[in-house]
Amino acid sequence: MDEIIEIINGTPIDIKRLHAIFAGMNPVDIAGLFEDMDKDSIGQVFRVLPKAIAAEVFAYIEPDEQQLIVENLTDKEISEIINKLFMDDTVDFIEEMPANVVKRVLQNVGVEKRKLINQILRYPEDSAGSVMTTEYINLGEDMTVAEAFDFIRKTGVNKETIYTSYVITPDRKLIGSLSAKTLMLAQPGERVSDIMEKNVIHTHTTDDQEMVAGLFKKYDLLSMPVVDNDDRLVGIVTVDDVLEIIEEESTEDIEIMGALQPSEEPYMKTGIIQLAKNRMLWLLVLMLSATVTGAVLSGFEDALAVLPILVIFIPMLMDTGGNAGSQSSTLIIRGMALGEIESKNLLEVLWKEVRIGFLCGIVLGFINFIRVYLMNGRNAVLAFAVTMSLFCTIIIAKMVGCMLPIVAKKIKVDPAIMAAPLITTIVDAASLLIYFSIAKLIFKI
Amino acid sequence: MDEIIEIINGTPIDIKRLHAIFAGMNPVDIAGLFEDMDKDSIGQVFRVLPKAIAAEVFAYIEPDEQQLIVENLTDKEISEIINKLFMDDTVDFIEEMPANVVKRVLQNVGVEKRKLINQILRYPEDSAGSVMTTEYINLGEDMTVAEAFDFIRKTGVNKETIYTSYVITPDRKLIGSLSAKTLMLAQPGERVSDIMEKNVIHTHTTDDQEMVAGLFKKYDLLSMPVVDNDDRLVGIVTVDDVLEIIEEESTEDIEIMGALQPSEEPYMKTGIIQLAKNRMLWLLVLMLSATVTGAVLSGFEDALAVLPILVIFIPMLMDTGGNAGSQSSTLIIRGMALGEIESKNLLEVLWKEVRIGFLCGIVLGFINFIRVYLMNGRNAVLAFAVTMSLFCTIIIAKMVGCMLPIVAKKIKVDPAIMAAPLITTIVDAASLLIYFSIAKLIFKI
Repeated sequence: MDEIIEIINGTPIDIKRLHAIFAGMNPVDIAGLFEDMDKDSIGQVFRVLPKAIAAEVFAYIEPDEQQLIVENLTDKEISEIINKLFMDDTVDFIEEMPANVVKRVLQNVGVEKRKLINQILRYPEDSAGSVMTTEYINLGEDMTVAEAFDFIRKTGVNKETIYTSYVITPDRKLIGSLSAKTLMLAQPGERVSDIMEKNVIHTHTTDDQEMVAGLFKKYDLLSMPVVDNDDRLVGIVTVDDVLEIIEEESTEDIEIMGALQPSEEPYMKTGIIQLAKNRMLWLLVLMLSATVTGAVLSGFEDALAVLPILVIFIPMLMDTGGNAGSQSSTLIIRGMALGEIESKNLLEVLWKEVRIGFLCGIVLGFINFIRVYLMNGRNAVLAFAVTMSLFCTIIIAKMVGCMLPIVAKKIKVDPAIMAAPLITTIVDAASLLIYFSIAKLIFKI
Repeated sequence: MDEIIEIINGTPIDIKRLHAIFAGMNPVDIAGLFEDMDKDSIGQVFRVLPKAIAAEVFAYIEPDEQQLIVENLTDKEISEIINKLFMDDTVDFIEEMPANVVKRVLQNVGVEKRKLINQILRYPEDSAGSVMTTEYINLGEDMTVAEAFDFIRKTGVNKETIYTSYVITPDRKLIGSLSAKTLMLAQPGERVSDIMEKNVIHTHTTDDQEMVAGLFKKYDLLSMPVVDNDDRLVGIVTVDDVLEIIEEESTEDIEIMGALQPSEEPYMKTGIIQLAKNRMLWLLVLMLSATVTGAVLSGFEDALAVLPILVIFIPMLMDTGGNAGSQSSTLIIRGMALGEIESKNLLEVLWKEVRIGFLCGIVLGFINFIRVYLMNGRNAVLAFAVTMSLFCTIIIAKMVGCMLPIVAKKIKVDPAIMAAPLITTIVDAASLLIYFSIAKLIFKI
């Protein structure tokens, strides 16, 4: 890194030595260098990259630095880079740029590519169409294996993957797929139509990316063709993008489960106003909901006046109820996201959770009884009242925690919303209601 | 499905018709059929599978059904299936079987394979060695492109991937990699050593699978070589396994964040005793910790006696504090898992969270003031006391929520533990301390 900067600052710049350094490096690592570079060097260093790898390196550079580079390039240089970028990387890049940069970039790409870019930008966010790329290999069904090989050799260098080719009719309808493995193991004279896989797992442009990721996982795919409404092949999704999709979807779920509005921006690069905005709505909703619990409490002010010691078990009951409920909702939400639990399992899950709540309630209740008894003046009646409340709270919490996510899914609401924060708020009110009802009954207040 | 069962039940079984059905299906989907089959049919149906696909189908069948099948097979049939399974699928299968099945399987595989299986089973859980497979293509550096092609054609059919070959010295040291793309685009007479990539991204047998997944994502890999302590090539990890690793690691984090002991078993297939066990420990720890909050409350019994209305704001303060804190910890934990936030960012993150807490505190405080004022007898002093407590609680919660995960990582504890449940418990005590201190000050109790 220091060596590179030193060479850049020398006059004349020792391009040979630079290229020797870059030749031994992975393009991803070269792209990584730009993150730590000072702003003035970024444009210079990018210019001296070997032409053969410049576009690939550019694809891996972070958006902020991409923008600095583009602002430093001539129209001709922009055109060279962008025309060599794969379509999915081009679209990712354009989506992150401000309007003036986008305009300049679009003016400097070919008509065909500009049309394609605009088309892909119109697909819904997180759809298969929005993550696909258009550099795939398509074969005709009448080709022989030898012809297919020749074709791949000629056109393959600019394709995102050459390991699966797609077989299409003259009007671009997808009719088969052919792996490079099958091709390599076949005889030169065989026909593509005889050895291709006819049962092609594919997706539609408007399908959700999470569904696409699920198919990759299920069928161990390296790439998947994307077809339009007329079943014409328009692009492919490759497995490297699926790795990101899977992580992105998990992050989104985790954020929603943490009472945050999900955001794709990394934390360190997001401003505090935006971060605060993403948190405000849920904090507000939950704060106002918690006043219900306050109202429950105020309804029992008389009981508290008679027996003030009741107040000290409130936090323990609320917290344990919240935790017991969010344990259940966490498992159910994740299980549904992974397709292991479905809406139709509601009753089975509920029955399971009731029994689990029973087991947890017994063990926790036992320990709680001893603790309350020993620490609060050996008052067995008080310890019994608290323990009974705890036991009931845990069972109710488990029931609420498992049911709400499943019900949410049934009414087409994201189950991840029904996670710890909301469950806690709901279970809070229930636990206090149970607690004071039991206390009033036992102490005859 | 019904058709298949019907054919199975016919005498004689119409094997031809069955094979025709299977030929049009993906092995993954055939494997899926076994899940809904009744126990008696499973063995029968598996036997009539075409030999060429039986092993592949077997790899995708769930462990419970795999066991039923193996119990129904002869030693010779077991040997045929297992010897055709890829090593990673073999190990996955063996890990799920009871001891008597494992013994029978190991007795029926070749000596070489048995040795390998035992070796892989000894690698630490979730290490690269434990997820790798051993069916890769290795080339010599002196081969020509034509020779390499021939070699791949001859041996490739039984390899998990033929799209990247690894170049090794005679004593198996890894010195290069060669993609099928490079091979296909090269001239037949070129030497492997001249066109191979020398800078091979690789991993060691004992490296953590999460690190391996990170490298796949960073470098967009389809497979990665695994070397032993002497840098000898011992296996490869393929991208299809990485998809599962990424999901598994996210699930583990989500479960830990939900106060659960993580488990790889799917919820629907886990018994209630095990599920209850996975929850008990944390419920207990948190229940006992919550008694600290109770102790704080009991220290303020005098204040509560003078001003009983104070009690009704306790749930709102505790919940909002818990939510504000867990929002921060959720983002930080996920950011650290994705490598976007590091321990060295502690101060920067802390300063960010303080300002976010300030913003959230202002907005929530304002709304809270109005609500308390209007709903509690237009008592401005009371509303002010509650609002000030809320404001301070939110800021403290944000600080605790962002610091604890980072500190956990520094002292090599899994940051995911510092999520909602623990943060809530800690912030609870803090919020009540703040609340009553402010109340005592303002009301001069």
